[in-house]
Amino acid sequence: MRFNEELAHIATYQAGKPIEEIVRTFGLDEKDVIKLASNENPYGASPSVVECIRHNAHKVSLYPDDSMHALISRLQQHYGIEYGQCIVGSGSDQIIELCMHAKATKSSKILMAGITFAMYEIYAKHIGAQVIRTPSKEHNLAEFYELFTQHKPDIVFFCVPNNPLGECVDAKELYRLLAHIEQESSGETLVVIDGAYQEFASYKDSSKHIDPRDLINRFANAIYLGTFSKVYGLGGMRVGYGIAQENIIQALYKLRAPFNITTLSLAAACVALEDQEFVRATLEKNFTQMLRYEEFAESRGISYIPSYTNFITLVLENPYDSSVICDTLLRQGIIIRNLASYGINAFRITIGTQEQNTRVLLALTESMR
Amino acid sequence: MRFNEELAHIATYQAGKPIEEIVRTFGLDEKDVIKLASNENPYGASPSVVECIRHNAHKVSLYPDDSMHALISRLQQHYGIEYGQCIVGSGSDQIIELCMHAKATKSSKILMAGITFAMYEIYAKHIGAQVIRTPSKEHNLAEFYELFTQHKPDIVFFCVPNNPLGECVDAKELYRLLAHIEQESSGETLVVIDGAYQEFASYKDSSKHIDPRDLINRFANAIYLGTFSKVYGLGGMRVGYGIAQENIIQALYKLRAPFNITTLSLAAACVALEDQEFVRATLEKNFTQMLRYEEFAESRGISYIPSYTNFITLVLENPYDSSVICDTLLRQGIIIRNLASYGINAFRITIGTQEQNTRVLLALTESMR
Repeated sequence: MRFNEELAHIATYQAGKPIEEIVRTFGLDEKDVIKLASNENPYGASPSVVECIRHNAHKVSLYPDDSMHALISRLQQHYGIEYGQCIVGSGSDQIIELCMHAKATKSSKILMAGITFAMYEIYAKHIGAQVIRTPSKEHNLAEFYELFTQHKPDIVFFCVPNNPLGECVDAKELYRLLAHIEQESSGETLVVIDGAYQEFASYKDSSKHIDPRDLINRFANAIYLGTFSKVYGLGGMRVGYGIAQENIIQALYKLRAPFNITTLSLAAACVALEDQEFVRATLEKNFTQMLRYEEFAESRGISYIPSYTNFITLVLENPYDSSVICDTLLRQGIIIRNLASYGINAFRITIGTQEQNTRVLLALTESMR
Repeated sequence: MRFNEELAHIATYQAGKPIEEIVRTFGLDEKDVIKLASNENPYGASPSVVECIRHNAHKVSLYPDDSMHALISRLQQHYGIEYGQCIVGSGSDQIIELCMHAKATKSSKILMAGITFAMYEIYAKHIGAQVIRTPSKEHNLAEFYELFTQHKPDIVFFCVPNNPLGECVDAKELYRLLAHIEQESSGETLVVIDGAYQEFASYKDSSKHIDPRDLINRFANAIYLGTFSKVYGLGGMRVGYGIAQENIIQALYKLRAPFNITTLSLAAACVALEDQEFVRATLEKNFTQMLRYEEFAESRGISYIPSYTNFITLVLENPYDSSVICDTLLRQGIIIRNLASYGINAFRITIGTQEQNTRVLLALTESMR
């Protein structure tokens, strides 16, 4: 059977190996495996979330409330936005997908950083749109401006802070560029500000803080993406959201599949948003533990990218090879993210708990003698 | 901001009113509200599923196993298919969406019954494809054949049994038509057999049974859709699947978003599939209870469509008006599905528990004096 031509250019997404497979392959004990590859919250979710799920477990036969009234109201209150300025997706991934289908066509160009969140390109390929990347790996706003002027892309993605590198553009500088983009595109270029790790960046440095309400009030062509998968510890529940002016939200709603979030995910996200003390404690521990990786790198003369997230990226030089090191750690049951597939000799480690980080640092020390 | 032109022709999906809103609007007690509008399992989910969710509630921070190895292996075993012949979606809805994006374009035609599952048309509109419907409301295979020959559609949908009407085509007759379609399209027309309610149909009448393995072995251009939302009682968990030859599954995988199922949904579906005794008991009670609606209708000379599902559709004549009756029941806290929006004077009732049906039948008797 023939399929649409775009499919010929899409490689099937390859998931990371499940823990069970690593346990089997290397003869490990499951409890000894540490997964620090997907930037999940190492402290889990708020205890109130776990309690909420247990309490609601018997309701699984009922379709979710597709209006998502409870969750959208809470997000509205949390961010001080209007009710119609928010859409909830199965992870913020799904909002990216909706943006792509609502705005881009085969003849569109999509602008993004040299190295950034992989799903922007994957969804662009679903449409058959052309991806334009800045020469710099990290976000370089001057390059963004130049390529924007040259290509007039339909969508520009900014990952603030950036995954998988960890750097973060300054909010003021970003806003200056957004003003240019809005003016020169007559508000027709959709600007996606992916704030999946914004809570981390804002906590570390307020000059990195993007306030969604402020953003969309200034820029009618911008959409802010947030997620419950990171600091809120709900990676397994698939809940993200988009915040934009109502006309953008309405366009995305037209393409949203009904019941795109599970009943338990909705309940969990509502409760998670209320436990801001859990969020604060996570942020504090994250940056305290991150210092240990920075010290490790500095003491050995290894480069790292100062991170505004819950992970840190170490950039290697000869004779070190990120693929060898990641493989060595994997055999000991430590899963980190090799960035070789991005064309760099580097790896990304999610900041774990104190105990996990101790084990990782020992293993790194061993493998980088 | 301008969006893609297809969006102009899409009406935003309007969800049914959540129970909370009905409670508020009509001053009811939540426990007195009966929802028999979405064909959920009135007996909930298997107790082992509820236990599994409680047991796994603390794992919500971890991304799901994106290989879905555990669930796909169980489906493989359940249906006697090959491992590569199955893809799991966020409800079987998502598989419909993937089929549409993989196979259809703006210039495609999509063939379906006069009245059938609403999402086929909605996803066709996302693409901008043209929907062709049979003149008959129920599945009429002669009309399907004629329209197929005339239009050469890229996709044909068969809902077996059909939602929201409840009728079911005979498997042998369907296979005869599928042979024509395969031959005349040289295997290029994708045939979607939506088996969301197949467990009910097969239980009632084995001549309605579609065996997915047999189907795809006979027809390389067919895909079978199944769901955990109905007889398995997992409507709130969003798990469905598609079964087809490997080349079709691989095409859909290219467009699948990673992590499209929650961690708890995967665990719940695995356990649900194992409790076939729960399935059997649900089926038995469903058809025993359905007799009460048939008797009610017959005793009052009201037409109904003999149903092979977990719902029954009553077709009214003057002076009865489905909108009036549904509204009357709603005010008493009984939510059923008015089919006026499908252009027929009819309503659909999910077969509830004995107690629920007693209340519904009393209310219907009152409102149809």
